[in-house]
Amino acid sequence: MTIPSVDVLRGDIVESRHRVSAAVTNPDGALVARAGDPDLVTFWRSAAKFFQAVPLLTDGAAAEFAITDEELGLACASHNGEPRHVRIASGLLEKIGCGPGDLACGPHASLAERVAKEMAERGERPTRLHNNCSGKHAGMLAQARFRGWPTAGYQEAGHPVQVRCLEEVARWTGAPARSIGIGVDGCGVTCFALPLRAMALAYARLGARRLGGAGDEGRAAAAERLIRAVTADPFLIAGRSRLCSELLEAGGGRVVAKVGAEGVYCATLPEPGLGVALKVEDGDFRSSAPALLAVLDQLAPGVASVAEEWRRPAILNTRGSVVGRLEARVPLLRA
Amino acid sequence: MTIPSVDVLRGDIVESRHRVSAAVTNPDGALVARAGDPDLVTFWRSAAKFFQAVPLLTDGAAAEFAITDEELGLACASHNGEPRHVRIASGLLEKIGCGPGDLACGPHASLAERVAKEMAERGERPTRLHNNCSGKHAGMLAQARFRGWPTAGYQEAGHPVQVRCLEEVARWTGAPARSIGIGVDGCGVTCFALPLRAMALAYARLGARRLGGAGDEGRAAAAERLIRAVTADPFLIAGRSRLCSELLEAGGGRVVAKVGAEGVYCATLPEPGLGVALKVEDGDFRSSAPALLAVLDQLAPGVASVAEEWRRPAILNTRGSVVGRLEARVPLLRA
Repeated sequence: MTIPSVDVLRGDIVESRHRVSAAVTNPDGALVARAGDPDLVTFWRSAAKFFQAVPLLTDGAAAEFAITDEELGLACASHNGEPRHVRIASGLLEKIGCGPGDLACGPHASLAERVAKEMAERGERPTRLHNNCSGKHAGMLAQARFRGWPTAGYQEAGHPVQVRCLEEVARWTGAPARSIGIGVDGCGVTCFALPLRAMALAYARLGARRLGGAGDEGRAAAAERLIRAVTADPFLIAGRSRLCSELLEAGGGRVVAKVGAEGVYCATLPEPGLGVALKVEDGDFRSSAPALLAVLDQLAPGVASVAEEWRRPAILNTRGSVVGRLEARVPLLRA
Repeated sequence: MTIPSVDVLRGDIVESRHRVSAAVTNPDGALVARAGDPDLVTFWRSAAKFFQAVPLLTDGAAAEFAITDEELGLACASHNGEPRHVRIASGLLEKIGCGPGDLACGPHASLAERVAKEMAERGERPTRLHNNCSGKHAGMLAQARFRGWPTAGYQEAGHPVQVRCLEEVARWTGAPARSIGIGVDGCGVTCFALPLRAMALAYARLGARRLGGAGDEGRAAAAERLIRAVTADPFLIAGRSRLCSELLEAGGGRVVAKVGAEGVYCATLPEPGLGVALKVEDGDFRSSAPALLAVLDQLAPGVASVAEEWRRPAILNTRGSVVGRLEARVPLLRA
């Protein structure tokens, strides 16, 4: 049996192997296809951001502060910290009476190698606003302001902002809140450990804009607005040289994908009505993109019409020569 | 059955898993212990450097150019590109009538995060001399000079320098030259794909200073001198904040270990007379150190007396908080 994996080839010899597990479900929670272990539990990391942003819409902060689609898109983003991302985050903070000093996230170099290199060459030092999660953090501060909760400590597990996020994650994923593992994310905020299958269900529901429960009309409307926000302006969710943005650009909303740290990638295909969640077992960042494309190409051929380099990225050595490439082999098994 | 692995824990939940395979042999080639697949074929990468340096001694270049122990140590190194490493590489090149422009390796940031950060802060740009392989390259140029071979193209598979290295690798590993896979290393030089078991045999023989074949006395003497060179001056093989150097410092020659790219680590324990070769399946760099220590601690308790942080490295987030750690679980099975 093939081990679903992204293989690292040096010349034509497999040098290393990144194992992959994936779950594909429909909005009713049925497992449609899988690779490896669809019940693998791992942290959702930044692929949870859509669901951490929903309360802004359902609870009323977005209306109260006249939060724009641009700002909502950034709240769902793992952005590059490019000047426009930074401006939007900064504007949202100002609008709610906060500043960069209120952000709990630390600085880091841009997620896009090219952008990081350009910033370093300009001698530009990343700040908290450049953190890929600054939009999510600004959104959480907006929620705290709106609900009258303290802004200090908004990132911690016991804070009402995080309790509310956990409740939302439980609702979309169908996983009971007490079954969801809690950790601290790279940006300092609470993050959630769940089976891939539960993450896939949340994305299937996001794309379908329905949860099917009584009183979930607000959530459906929130899904509609968040998807519209990121689709109308694909730069927001990530930025230049980033697959999440390029998929939105190419697919015009036929696929919405969101990367997470440590090899997580999730996506929704609203048209066939599917949610996808995958994990590169070892947490490798670079191989999660070819893995996602291998899955999308099987589920919806032609929809992920991005450059071939995303599917088979080259490996360069210190001389700048191509010495190998990544090859995704992630055959889906129908469940 | 436990999967031998280095697990990435966020809080107390396993977020990612790096699978590990390892082979342990004696100098006669008997497999003494294993984890995962001891016959896994992968590239030896920089863990081959001792054997790429042997021809300098056996063929005569070291005597001809009066190559010092310091320079021999650097030829076996994946060094940090610290000022002293750079000075030694530069001196060796001068001694053989070459210059930095003859090096085929490209520049890259130091392998030690701390050193890379300090260099960046000083605005120091890495050059070819800073490449962790510059000592190996200078040694290969010395071999070309001594044998009267062209220096241009010395890094390529067809060049006599590389043919000679392949022959040497075959001799130590016991693998027929035609069975050894060829690729291009990160530094542009030919690299070798072999089963872990064959790599372990070479290290067992290196530590034992014997191959057991007729006419191998020169090789045994070369092993003795290379081990003496790196043991007498542990900084050479790697540098500050690097496990290879710290193991030599702590063990005084009771263990000699050499890291390779893409999750490879090899070592010899001359006293029990063992060679170790391991591979982190996915090529992860950081987890190979805890994996090696887990193996060494079983084979020779107390010998690898380095800081606990090498065994269970902390994971920090962008705020600088500890949010998790690596945990090696690599139980050896006696073969």
